[in-house]
Amino acid sequence: MRSEPATLTYVPALKCVRIIDQTRLPLRLEQLELRDLQQFSHAIAAMQVRGAPLIGITAAYGLALALQQDPGLECLNRSVAALAATRPTAVNLQWALQRVAEVARAASEESRAERALLEAHTIAEEDIAACRAIAVNGLPLIQALASQTPCVNIMTHCNAGRLAALEYGTALAPIYLAHEQGLSVHVWVSETRPRNQGASLTAWELDQAGVPFTLIADNAAGALMQSGQVDCCLVGSDRTAANGDVCNKIGTYMKAVAAQQHKVPFYVALPVSTIDWNSPDGSHIPIEERDEAEVLQLSEQPLSVADARAWNPAFDVTPAALVSALITERGVVRPAPDAMAGLRRPDTG
Amino acid sequence: MRSEPATLTYVPALKCVRIIDQTRLPLRLEQLELRDLQQFSHAIAAMQVRGAPLIGITAAYGLALALQQDPGLECLNRSVAALAATRPTAVNLQWALQRVAEVARAASEESRAERALLEAHTIAEEDIAACRAIAVNGLPLIQALASQTPCVNIMTHCNAGRLAALEYGTALAPIYLAHEQGLSVHVWVSETRPRNQGASLTAWELDQAGVPFTLIADNAAGALMQSGQVDCCLVGSDRTAANGDVCNKIGTYMKAVAAQQHKVPFYVALPVSTIDWNSPDGSHIPIEERDEAEVLQLSEQPLSVADARAWNPAFDVTPAALVSALITERGVVRPAPDAMAGLRRPDTG
Repeated sequence: MRSEPATLTYVPALKCVRIIDQTRLPLRLEQLELRDLQQFSHAIAAMQVRGAPLIGITAAYGLALALQQDPGLECLNRSVAALAATRPTAVNLQWALQRVAEVARAASEESRAERALLEAHTIAEEDIAACRAIAVNGLPLIQALASQTPCVNIMTHCNAGRLAALEYGTALAPIYLAHEQGLSVHVWVSETRPRNQGASLTAWELDQAGVPFTLIADNAAGALMQSGQVDCCLVGSDRTAANGDVCNKIGTYMKAVAAQQHKVPFYVALPVSTIDWNSPDGSHIPIEERDEAEVLQLSEQPLSVADARAWNPAFDVTPAALVSALITERGVVRPAPDAMAGLRRPDTG
Repeated sequence: MRSEPATLTYVPALKCVRIIDQTRLPLRLEQLELRDLQQFSHAIAAMQVRGAPLIGITAAYGLALALQQDPGLECLNRSVAALAATRPTAVNLQWALQRVAEVARAASEESRAERALLEAHTIAEEDIAACRAIAVNGLPLIQALASQTPCVNIMTHCNAGRLAALEYGTALAPIYLAHEQGLSVHVWVSETRPRNQGASLTAWELDQAGVPFTLIADNAAGALMQSGQVDCCLVGSDRTAANGDVCNKIGTYMKAVAAQQHKVPFYVALPVSTIDWNSPDGSHIPIEERDEAEVLQLSEQPLSVADARAWNPAFDVTPAALVSALITERGVVRPAPDAMAGLRRPDTG
């Protein structure tokens, strides 16, 4: 699948990274050029780019381009710290920064920027390959459902598509591949309050790709499963613990509980880079709490009384026991420590 | 508890009913005067008044005032049909219309309008008494929790407060009484997409009453229960089946499933008038599907791509098995046919 414009591209002639400003979708398709550390940090913190894989890739390029301006070790350390502080939950951010920083530290000052940029390219290419492999590995799960129903109804949450990665995305990857292969699929897109990534981003990219979808309020997900209109759930992950607990967009957990209640398979698609081997379970994952204004306002228009306060966690943890399978680029596994150990290669330490 | 202005008042001098236009809250507190059938029908259909008890009361007055203009039986039948067609789920609508129509039919044409108005007053007064009794009957459940924690954290959904009835409301009634008696309570208010009655109405009336509350996106309810920050759920009901299945605002069901997962008591407060003895279980309750624009837009601002479609059911059914207790004006009962039979009196048909 190739779509224009790309979610993120490195532009060699301009020595910049060009992104889609996702805060403007779906009303406006605007691109931004990121050149310096401040722009990269702002793009991640302000969610102009979001989605665990894309956050990692953006940070990798941010560090590489910062080193083009100043290849000194002091700049390296300062840039890593600034980028690492932009968002707390997606572990890809730390992982990608660590990869680029290791390569850069090992290089001479003369070659440091170039080596860092090559590593950022590698991370981006690996992400594309991982998403393709997730599509291929997840496809049989959809094919199995397609053998039982004329149209496979898949519920997703938030956005784990090409706007969250580079090409296919993660959760949407098997759906795109199934659609390309002529399987009849239909996606239930929950709007994903408070930032509405389902309504604004997932709807936009499914619409671009011609995949049939219907939008629902987040509240309607339970009634849909209860009425037998959901064949499986398929979501992404911002950080996955070593035991298979999955930290994903707030609201994922309630969908998983409802799916269990109705015996609807609950699949989570993720590149192995989102697995945090240092988190034995979900309770160790830091949950980002965002500005209460996201709940209290929409486009600066107040939604509640003036002195209302809000609690606004960006993610929740779905225990491994509620997850039917993890779909990764290295295969489909049960979310249990023993099965997951097979995903861990020496080089992913 | 007395609050000004009242949610709905009959104004004898003007022969009209004065309501708060709930579509304007929380930004503007505006009142409307309803005089003729068309205005009453519009007020219910456009949700200027909403909430099962209030819908019933409004329809009762609508019928009575229509008869003041024309006490003929043809007008009676036409008015009942028009008001009954405004919204399908709340059974109070049919129940209140039937009560007023029966009294009116039994009366002479000369006394018909007056008798109908008296019956509407009676329905309103009974609602106030029922809500007070719900407050009194529900209070011990909150007191029991208060003995175990410094502050009782109660999660509600949508609005089942004084804006849904006349004074105390239903689900909020025991909370108001607990607050008045000095118990420390705090309410988690879910915004209740797509129409945001939690953010706009429940937040508004709790704020007016000085009851502490925090707003959450509907998606955050599961994470709250998972983290032990919810002592009980307390919601209303738009129609209750004879077996105790509860039809309430879309999203109630997922909260009930999450509550069961975390052994959080799930209470439903309702006047007996919301029980539909002709519905043996929830599958017999008609679920209103509302305009998809409610999901696709907010204040006419698009939230998704131009050609997106949405599915927008207004209610869902929570099976009796997930309900810890029904709090009614006639007592607190288990939601099972045998226990509920005690709520049924000969005069409630």
